Amino acid sequence: MSLEHLRRDLQYQYGPGASPLFVYSCATLVHNVRCYLDALKSMHSWKDVVFQGAAGVLAYSMKANGNPRVAAALLEAGVQRATCIHYCLDSITLASTPLPATSRWEVEEAVRGGSLLNVDSIFDACRVVEVATDVGLQAKLLLRLNPAIDALTHPYLSTAMADCKFGIEESQVKQVLGVLWSARNSVKVEGVHVHLGSAITDLSVYGNVMQSVSRVLYQIFHYNKPEQIRQFGWHDAAVVNLGGGLGVFPAPHQLPRDHPLALIDTGTSMDPTPTPADLMKVVLPLLPEGVTLILEPGRSLVASAGVLMTEILGVKTNGGKVFVVTDAAMTEVIRPALYSSKHPVTRLTQPKTDTILKEAAHLVDVVGPVCESGDYLAKDCRLPPPAVTQGDCLLVWMTGAYCSAMASNYNMRPHVMEVMVHGPANYKIIRRPQNFDDIMKEYQ
Amino acid sequence: MSLEHLRRDLQYQYGPGASPLFVYSCATLVHNVRCYLDALKSMHSWKDVVFQGAAGVLAYSMKANGNPRVAAALLEAGVQRATCIHYCLDSITLASTPLPATSRWEVEEAVRGGSLLNVDSIFDACRVVEVATDVGLQAKLLLRLNPAIDALTHPYLSTAMADCKFGIEESQVKQVLGVLWSARNSVKVEGVHVHLGSAITDLSVYGNVMQSVSRVLYQIFHYNKPEQIRQFGWHDAAVVNLGGGLGVFPAPHQLPRDHPLALIDTGTSMDPTPTPADLMKVVLPLLPEGVTLILEPGRSLVASAGVLMTEILGVKTNGGKVFVVTDAAMTEVIRPALYSSKHPVTRLTQPKTDTILKEAAHLVDVVGPVCESGDYLAKDCRLPPPAVTQGDCLLVWMTGAYCSAMASNYNMRPHVMEVMVHGPANYKIIRRPQNFDDIMKEYQ
Ligand SMILES: Cc1ncc(COP(=O)(O)O)c(C=O)c1O
Ligand SMILES: Cc1ncc(COP(=O)(O)O)c(C=O)c1O
Repeated sequence: MSLEHLRRDLQYQYGPGASPLFVYSCATLVHNVRCYLDALKSMHSWKDVVFQGAAGVLAYSMKANGNPRVAAALLEAGVQRATCIHYCLDSITLASTPLPATSRWEVEEAVRGGSLLNVDSIFDACRVVEVATDVGLQAKLLLRLNPAIDALTHPYLSTAMADCKFGIEESQVKQVLGVLWSARNSVKVEGVHVHLGSAITDLSVYGNVMQSVSRVLYQIFHYNKPEQIRQFGWHDAAVVNLGGGLGVFPAPHQLPRDHPLALIDTGTSMDPTPTPADLMKVVLPLLPEGVTLILEPGRSLVASAGVLMTEILGVKTNGGKVFVVTDAAMTEVIRPALYSSKHPVTRLTQPKTDTILKEAAHLVDVVGPVCESGDYLAKDCRLPPPAVTQGDCLLVWMTGAYCSAMASNYNMRPHVMEVMVHGPANYKIIRRPQNFDDIMKEYQ
Repeated sequence: MSLEHLRRDLQYQYGPGASPLFVYSCATLVHNVRCYLDALKSMHSWKDVVFQGAAGVLAYSMKANGNPRVAAALLEAGVQRATCIHYCLDSITLASTPLPATSRWEVEEAVRGGSLLNVDSIFDACRVVEVATDVGLQAKLLLRLNPAIDALTHPYLSTAMADCKFGIEESQVKQVLGVLWSARNSVKVEGVHVHLGSAITDLSVYGNVMQSVSRVLYQIFHYNKPEQIRQFGWHDAAVVNLGGGLGVFPAPHQLPRDHPLALIDTGTSMDPTPTPADLMKVVLPLLPEGVTLILEPGRSLVASAGVLMTEILGVKTNGGKVFVVTDAAMTEVIRPALYSSKHPVTRLTQPKTDTILKEAAHLVDVVGPVCESGDYLAKDCRLPPPAVTQGDCLLVWMTGAYCSAMASNYNMRPHVMEVMVHGPANYKIIRRPQNFDDIMKEYQ
């Protein structure tokens, strides 16, 4: 299914409500899952497994994209569980009870569902114990560690440094275990969890974290010292959940080629994207024997499967700068404003002649219609100016992760439509566009 | 109505769904409107008015807070119109047609409603002409100018610099007027509009913009040169819409005093907030005679009327830093992460003894439960550590503007409840909390 065809089809059905539009490729989702599963296969020669019959478990971090159809497609492709906020779900059957904003509900849900829960602090341990005792079921826990490692990414996306709010620093691990052990009928520690951060490109940080993880596993759980095992009892604790974090940096030549593209080069990094195989090369040699490894990536499973289609409202110049104003805005893609992230932008339809592309390109900003300067999709793109005009359609790539998931109704802008493309001729609307009544629904 | 009382009441009715919670004070809204109206009164000695029978018009920029009850309270208090996106509404009767994401619908709506529309560029002028011609009504327009002035605020909030996407630079004004004049049956230029930016504290920038505005009014509309007036015909164009932009920087002593506060000083600027009277002192001497002045503030009408109440989930330390983890997050208040803005945070309930406050205070970060380091409400607050614990309630001040309006469902977090307090004993729920079904509603 060509994107032009898709666009015409949806415009016919939905009029202006069909733009902007997130399009997800099911084939790319499947491909991304495959890459992880193939990389995890390298574990199969390993010792038999402790947790859920698999040495390597691939989970999906739903915060990257909460569309249930996206999660379902990943599960169908081989993802073994979807993780939502602080716990692993075995399927996407989210409860339909009202969501309180506190997380007691989440904890209860996780305990009842037999999910693996991450314990983040002493107070978190106390609460889990309290809830599990109330519920009367034994909660399965991982300790979320703070290994004091800089993930070498955007500060907002680095989540394991010493002075970050996340995880338990090593000096506090015993205290947390003490709290949990004293309630061992209600809780069971299965292992450890670390999430270094997101958009990581320098994989050496995973090597550092593995060293820290093994230290805690061995020193805290003391595999080789039976008297210590008895102290904390969980001698079969053997799960290491390494979180997510793999960055995605498509070089322009990595963009899908199944439709005509006129490239607006965004100066996106040309670094090759680190692959799950690269990750496993760093992690496996350092993984303690007999350990079950959980990976719960978000971005690297879904980012490259999503593209935002947006119509050009007009082109203007100010102060010698060219602005391409689109109908998409920071309300759909807040990542450039919030994380200074770069998304490649291309043109859906090919310009009339090839020669245009060879002309000296002007620098343009691709901006939305929201009245603030933070509302931009891409800055300083190269673009031959005669080639885009009002009504043309642009594609903003790598928008499958942390885009629709972070969308807002700022400026009364509705959440936009989402579509999943299945194979060459089929697509399915997996989120209808919001209308004004949807936005006003909760006001009383 | 004390906030403790309100909290207990809502917790009783809604359980955990009552936190976090935005509380708006109707009295503060009324007070903020009064300040503007009093300042505008200084215009009453002026020449008779051209537009809508008022020399000074106070509008409200709904993007700051889109809750219809907030806008209604402001209108009742004396605001003359509410502005929504690119146009002025005479009331809050927003159409309930589906909102397309492009702005053709907005333009049509504005033309049909007889609203004042801002024209932002040549392409915008062309579209307005097209829509007005289609609709068969004459559109009333202001030219949005780009005066090439730095508003001396956060770069994302500065919207009138030369290389900003906003407005028409002076060299292009005649071209835009040419486009509009050739369609003068469909459009009528009433004056000019400039919005310098937001969170402005140095009012001298308004002086600069007035000079630029008068230049365009006089040189372009050539009040004193009849032959030029004839060229563009709109000899009665006399509206200057100065936009919004007044910053709000409450010193801690300006925080409401009608309930016990234990102060967590956030290092918030102690600069006195600039007032509407200060603004008028700068603007009036430079306003061309006979001009109708429209102000359309957002933040300075609503920010100080709103407070976010949030419960402490727990307190933890990492790397020697203290983290107070609340049930509110960047999903409710994204301004610290996006604009590095500072919101004062205080404790709802008084600590047990006064002496605690006199102890050397630890520095704490107030953070939310969303898994990224950008999820914080305040950094490096001073706080006596024994005085807040799990279950305590914090107040995040100045959250009436650009907080709920920018909220997202990131991490599956529901939009939170909003309440308006009327007088000493009454409150009204003006937005019910979202539930899980609301979040899932558009998925198919
Ligand atoms: C605990 C945890 N696991 C996994 C992820 C997914 O990370 P990414 O999308 O970078 O793979 C996140 C995201 O922040 C997270 O917080
Ligand atoms: C055109 C226009 N007018 C008024 C405002 C309101 O600004 P403030 O909330 O800073 O008063 C904005 C906000 O960005 C705006 O874009």
